[in-house]
Amino acid sequence: MKKVYFSGSIRGGREDLAIYQEWIRRLRETAEVLTEFIGDSTLEEQEARTLTDRDIYERDVRLLEGCDVVVAECTQPSLGVGYELSYAERFGKPVILLFREDGVRRLSAMLSGNPRFHTIYYRNVADGWELLREYL
Amino acid sequence: MKKVYFSGSIRGGREDLAIYQEWIRRLRETAEVLTEFIGDSTLEEQEARTLTDRDIYERDVRLLEGCDVVVAECTQPSLGVGYELSYAERFGKPVILLFREDGVRRLSAMLSGNPRFHTIYYRNVADGWELLREYL
Repeated sequence: MKKVYFSGSIRGGREDLAIYQEWIRRLRETAEVLTEFIGDSTLEEQEARTLTDRDIYERDVRLLEGCDVVVAECTQPSLGVGYELSYAERFGKPVILLFREDGVRRLSAMLSGNPRFHTIYYRNVADGWELLREYL
Repeated sequence: MKKVYFSGSIRGGREDLAIYQEWIRRLRETAEVLTEFIGDSTLEEQEARTLTDRDIYERDVRLLEGCDVVVAECTQPSLGVGYELSYAERFGKPVILLFREDGVRRLSAMLSGNPRFHTIYYRNVADGWELLREYL
């Protein structure tokens, strides 16, 4: 069972929280998700009570270094997600990007133009999952 | 004269374009700015006509590898900026983050919690510049 580091926006904006939850639920069917907390609606409050930013950073880079593959939902712009993707690349981790097509937003050229990343463009999670599961 | 890679959001949102322009104008007083195009209001249209995403990626990582220091305005969340910061770290570049305090937005813990990055919190560019110029 592959260890998946699922990445999504936190402080960049939680508009896609329900989407993250749906992806995590699907991923758990066939993989171990190291970052289930990304789908927790009370994450920021919990972390604010118990962790410094340094703690969060150290936790997440440790999880990244221990994963088999990174799956990142990239529709909502996020500095943390972008940082994690280059960090994962440095450690030779396969990186799969998920991007919802709405005809307005465009994925960063630093991600879509990176020949080492694979991007799945999707409209709903059920359809996207059929494409993603082949990589897991 | 130091070569500065100035980083700011493009596809993540151009709401801070005027701020980027002001930072670039200040930086040019004492440094060579490798990425003046970040402050160009017609950047996206120009790039769409002349460059593929792969071209943009290759241009920007080449500029990153050739700079002396990275200065990133991080108030507007951006996947590309986040990616560039970890990329710069991999090549041992000094990284200075600029973040405008508005009492609402919070800088990503993956950046604020990274002990190798230095963050300047500021309210207006004139004040922030007094802090930044000491690093240049």
